[in-house]
Amino acid sequence: MKKIAILGSTGSIGTQTLEIVRTNKDIKVTALAAGRNIDLLEKQIREFEPKLAAVWSEELASELKSRVRDIQVKILSGMDGLLAVASEQESEILVTAIVGMIGILPTIEAIKAGKDIALANKETLVTAGHIIMPLAEKHHVSILPVDSEHSAIFQSLQGGQRKSLHKILLTASGGPFRGKKREELENIQVEDALKHPNWEMGRKITIDSSTMVNKGLEVIEAKWLFGVTVDQIQVVVQPQSIIHSMVEYEDGAVIAQLGTPDMKLPIQYALYYPERRYLPGERLDFETLTQITFEKPDTETFYGLKLAIEAGKKGGSLPTVFNAANEKAVALFLDRKIRYLQIPEIIRACMEEHKNIADPTVEEILKTEQETYEFIKCRMPRFCK
Amino acid sequence: MKKIAILGSTGSIGTQTLEIVRTNKDIKVTALAAGRNIDLLEKQIREFEPKLAAVWSEELASELKSRVRDIQVKILSGMDGLLAVASEQESEILVTAIVGMIGILPTIEAIKAGKDIALANKETLVTAGHIIMPLAEKHHVSILPVDSEHSAIFQSLQGGQRKSLHKILLTASGGPFRGKKREELENIQVEDALKHPNWEMGRKITIDSSTMVNKGLEVIEAKWLFGVTVDQIQVVVQPQSIIHSMVEYEDGAVIAQLGTPDMKLPIQYALYYPERRYLPGERLDFETLTQITFEKPDTETFYGLKLAIEAGKKGGSLPTVFNAANEKAVALFLDRKIRYLQIPEIIRACMEEHKNIADPTVEEILKTEQETYEFIKCRMPRFCK
Repeated sequence: MKKIAILGSTGSIGTQTLEIVRTNKDIKVTALAAGRNIDLLEKQIREFEPKLAAVWSEELASELKSRVRDIQVKILSGMDGLLAVASEQESEILVTAIVGMIGILPTIEAIKAGKDIALANKETLVTAGHIIMPLAEKHHVSILPVDSEHSAIFQSLQGGQRKSLHKILLTASGGPFRGKKREELENIQVEDALKHPNWEMGRKITIDSSTMVNKGLEVIEAKWLFGVTVDQIQVVVQPQSIIHSMVEYEDGAVIAQLGTPDMKLPIQYALYYPERRYLPGERLDFETLTQITFEKPDTETFYGLKLAIEAGKKGGSLPTVFNAANEKAVALFLDRKIRYLQIPEIIRACMEEHKNIADPTVEEILKTEQETYEFIKCRMPRFCK
Repeated sequence: MKKIAILGSTGSIGTQTLEIVRTNKDIKVTALAAGRNIDLLEKQIREFEPKLAAVWSEELASELKSRVRDIQVKILSGMDGLLAVASEQESEILVTAIVGMIGILPTIEAIKAGKDIALANKETLVTAGHIIMPLAEKHHVSILPVDSEHSAIFQSLQGGQRKSLHKILLTASGGPFRGKKREELENIQVEDALKHPNWEMGRKITIDSSTMVNKGLEVIEAKWLFGVTVDQIQVVVQPQSIIHSMVEYEDGAVIAQLGTPDMKLPIQYALYYPERRYLPGERLDFETLTQITFEKPDTETFYGLKLAIEAGKKGGSLPTVFNAANEKAVALFLDRKIRYLQIPEIIRACMEEHKNIADPTVEEILKTEQETYEFIKCRMPRFCK
């Protein structure tokens, strides 16, 4: 019996992880953490019977506690709750499906407790890869990517020798505005940006996908996960999202993972790695599939990607600034407080302003995040033309 | 120092194998065998200094012997020569780059002598897979595919578990007549059929590629190499020959190997497996590559493929008949004695005539080959309309 804990159980990755738990009889959930959705969390507690559950606010924790008083389950709140779920004694794998830099501390706690990490939280490696990766090595735990691209790279690297890896070909759909020029993006509304051509995802990541900032975050994440330089990562636009990513070895052989857009595959692969098992769902059908196309990413129009590459190359606290600035900018855009093209403008302004810290501690990372938020807040009038 | 012997050293695969030997300093050739080209074989002997060399005819062997009397090298001829090269004491790997069923006995000899086999001879597994694969297992030797498609499958299977392999997606360029209907192939001349769109290969295999018989032979070969049923192998036409083949696991993940059409990659991979090392040559460039397309194979027009699948499913001595009939038919076509569309007609006639032997011995396989040749000879007037 495999035992797992989930941070972010009510979100997209969290609920799909639980679907996999539901269909496999040899896996058990020992702890769950969610943000605000206690209605769904209550249902999950009743179905999966974890020993421990956590919600962020104390009020919602009390409310949940009284709702589930008929069941044997411990309910916690705040960062203490996240840390307790992350390091729950019996679990072997922590699925970090929580969004934001709030995932860093629980991930560190889980690694120290010897848990393997099924990583769906991009911010952890983007901002603290230099801390997380050596720590994981020290505690002999695996960081198993759940992102479809990183899982594809991970799958493509199986059986190959890391030393003969020449480069990573990170594929991108190009998002809903692929092919458009900057001037055509002037009047993009929230509704337009939320239409992703291939994948069903949360709102924030859908916007990030449309700006290609998401791909930029993935470049930085891949750098840490696979121990390569940013220069060894090439972004390839593959609009049909059939090739989920590729690796090129030094002999020129390219190994790729292809599939339908179903996040359950990378989730299940991470949970049972290195075993593969049957997964219900649609398959690629090469009798009806007619083509896979490739394009160069347009980093002039989608220069958030270029900024991410710059942040990834410079390292230090700059990726934190990149990430925090984007997070705030996307929130402002979703609140209709700024225009679409201001998202990369805000990121660039924050990066230009920042004095890079070479090897930041977790405290410095979190402080950089706050400072970035403050900077945007103070400059808001400038951005809210 | 890795030591290898080569059967068919003056052919396309043989010379490319020697190019790899030339650029790697830790590999040594201990024995070479060639068919008739003693001019090239002499040069190879002088450059690579094997202990042993063989040519098929006794006359050419004597001629060669006198030419290289200044060097310490043993020269042999006939099947004895091939068997001696195959089992040369010091070699660890035998590259079977010889064409035709003549490769079966030397391959068996090499396996019995504990040599790994870098297999470029299709006929061996097509006709005697049921003998070769258990023998290799018994002697703990590896059968390493050199064919680009089988190497791609082999590469895609690394790190995956064979038990979770769902199917093999064997790619095909479709050859120079892809998209044509049978009536358009009525007047195909030798010159037309020798124009392959992507790969530079020998004459016989280029014709086989144009009829898709080659893909049929590969289906049967893949069945043996990877321990699957013919029903688990799907032929996918991929005209640009960029995806060299794929595997689908039971979770739906498809792993593919892509590359430029360069046989040196699979040869080097087989020689150094599981190590990969740098290989000079062109790389896939995803900045200029715009598309990969897929089509269903047209097994009505190219029904040689359908016949191969039938032979592969029925097994026994039928694949030998398929192979021998094709070999003879292609030779007749290249000699302008029959028309292009008679190639599959001859194969079909031979298969219909044959009384299948369920689990043929090597002797029965070789006898079946001769009987197929005889059958075609007796019926020649019918085929030479």
